[in-house]
Amino acid sequence: MSKVKVAINGYGTIGKRVADAVFLQDDMEVIGISKTKPNFEARTAVLKGFPVYVPESSMDAFKKAGLPVAGTIEEMVKKADIVVDCTPGKIGITNKELYEKVGVKAIWQGGESKDVCSLSFNAEANYDQAYGADYARVVSCNTTGLCRAIYPLDQKYGVEKVRVTIVRRAGDPGDIKTGPVDALVLDPVKLPSHHGPDVKTIMPHINITSAAIKAPTTFMHLHVLNIKLKKECTVDDIKKLFVSRPRIKLISDGISSTAEIIEFGRDLGRSRNDMWESCVFKDSISIDDGELYFFQAIHQESDVIPENIDAIRAMTKLEKDNLKSIEKTNKALRKIGMDF
Amino acid sequence: MSKVKVAINGYGTIGKRVADAVFLQDDMEVIGISKTKPNFEARTAVLKGFPVYVPESSMDAFKKAGLPVAGTIEEMVKKADIVVDCTPGKIGITNKELYEKVGVKAIWQGGESKDVCSLSFNAEANYDQAYGADYARVVSCNTTGLCRAIYPLDQKYGVEKVRVTIVRRAGDPGDIKTGPVDALVLDPVKLPSHHGPDVKTIMPHINITSAAIKAPTTFMHLHVLNIKLKKECTVDDIKKLFVSRPRIKLISDGISSTAEIIEFGRDLGRSRNDMWESCVFKDSISIDDGELYFFQAIHQESDVIPENIDAIRAMTKLEKDNLKSIEKTNKALRKIGMDF
Repeated sequence: MSKVKVAINGYGTIGKRVADAVFLQDDMEVIGISKTKPNFEARTAVLKGFPVYVPESSMDAFKKAGLPVAGTIEEMVKKADIVVDCTPGKIGITNKELYEKVGVKAIWQGGESKDVCSLSFNAEANYDQAYGADYARVVSCNTTGLCRAIYPLDQKYGVEKVRVTIVRRAGDPGDIKTGPVDALVLDPVKLPSHHGPDVKTIMPHINITSAAIKAPTTFMHLHVLNIKLKKECTVDDIKKLFVSRPRIKLISDGISSTAEIIEFGRDLGRSRNDMWESCVFKDSISIDDGELYFFQAIHQESDVIPENIDAIRAMTKLEKDNLKSIEKTNKALRKIGMDF
Repeated sequence: MSKVKVAINGYGTIGKRVADAVFLQDDMEVIGISKTKPNFEARTAVLKGFPVYVPESSMDAFKKAGLPVAGTIEEMVKKADIVVDCTPGKIGITNKELYEKVGVKAIWQGGESKDVCSLSFNAEANYDQAYGADYARVVSCNTTGLCRAIYPLDQKYGVEKVRVTIVRRAGDPGDIKTGPVDALVLDPVKLPSHHGPDVKTIMPHINITSAAIKAPTTFMHLHVLNIKLKKECTVDDIKKLFVSRPRIKLISDGISSTAEIIEFGRDLGRSRNDMWESCVFKDSISIDDGELYFFQAIHQESDVIPENIDAIRAMTKLEKDNLKSIEKTNKALRKIGMDF
């Protein structure tokens, strides 16, 4: 069977990871990546052997930097079965016209409005809806993390109400422009934040409200979850349920911070220290006055990466069963880092 | 030929990296690592298959955490040809009695006083002195970085005077105790800092003075170097000289910060994003009023790792020629990350 041809439009935090993850799968291949600036990320794309496509206006800059160019972005898109759009938020929608003109399938990221296409995607909760679809949007890192926790709880115990406080990392580790350096920023002041409603694009029936704060850190987001379930259960029931899920990891071994989770990722030999699983702090799981509480950390740079792979597999009809796709993706990712 | 048996006493920031680096060499092997607490680092040591030795007093805690123990630290030391002591600074010297009693060779890190043994080590500058030696101290990350730059400049052009300002990272990324969060700390107030004198433990004839400041960042140290050379040369001469050195990398491709260097390390697939080379900012190299200036970034977690490997090779007489050992070490490290 010939491999599905994947183009990655945009090669920043998400794009470079999607490219590496596609490269690791045996049923799809990277036919090209796009980049606008000839910086160190473009250099590593060349070192890795990915064909680099650039806008006409960037051709000279790449030539000057000694970086080989394979063609224009339109030429790349025409060669693809599916494009993963990893351009910066709100830019992705401006590429839709090109994808429609060429007649190529496309995946956008959570930074785009939910209106970029009719389907929002999470591999565990609504894979079926994406089967054979032309367009989908993989929801944001935070929404992905929320769906991974809420979906199995809802399936097993029924969710009556979710209240979540999200303490967001302010910028990514390699970002030297975004602040703050020293402040806690209400994000936004007016409640609820967009995260709760975004979960409803995947699971419309969930009653959820969210508040978000931006903190001066780069490692991970941290969620404080309070969930009222419909059926009774114990702390051990929840631990067992979470252990059984393919994209939740229980964190223990003395770890009490996002910094130590990332250090654990480095020690595990994970590519770029990525922790693509939701990291639930095992000893934080508790039931108080009949309601479930726990902390989970979400690695903003990587948790959506396996979701993009599964979205490709669903949309191009490579696999009908979501759990089979998830396991195949997870297995391939283990080539770039130990499991635990 | 049987492999040299290496024990790593202490498995924190440096120890875990030394263990991985020894594991990658074909002429030495890890016979064990030691750890006092059953934390996530101990967990990864077990996952990697390293035999874990612990103090008597830690046996119960490891058993309770479900982490298998191979024996006591003294038992580990007795099995080794050479011990790399990576215990915290000022603790290493307290282990010397054990090493002397057992009659095993030992390497300490730069956190120990220069008086821990008579020999301080840098692979480029004084490998010969370590050939067959029983004890050596690999100088600190900053001193290593300074030696790598100053030694070739001194060999080729003669160094009349070095003035360096070191802006130090305050703590390592996984460290959740050390500050400051928001201050520039004179480190120390009284000049010069210890870094200049420490270079003299390797190259006693170098006239050097240093000042150090601690800044609230975790990625890397940054050196601002001003060097008065004895012979005239051009900026291009210096670039060519640095390119020719095995542990200096010229950094360009739009990078103007330590954050982007580490991001580059992540993209290169480096284990733990380690940049074990001195990272000289190519476009910063300049000559003003007859004196050389440049910036270099030093990855405090990893730049001494290859130096430890070369020290093992010299002390156990595996290799007489320092450049051959350096190249062998560098080549092995390329298995855990691309070169550029």
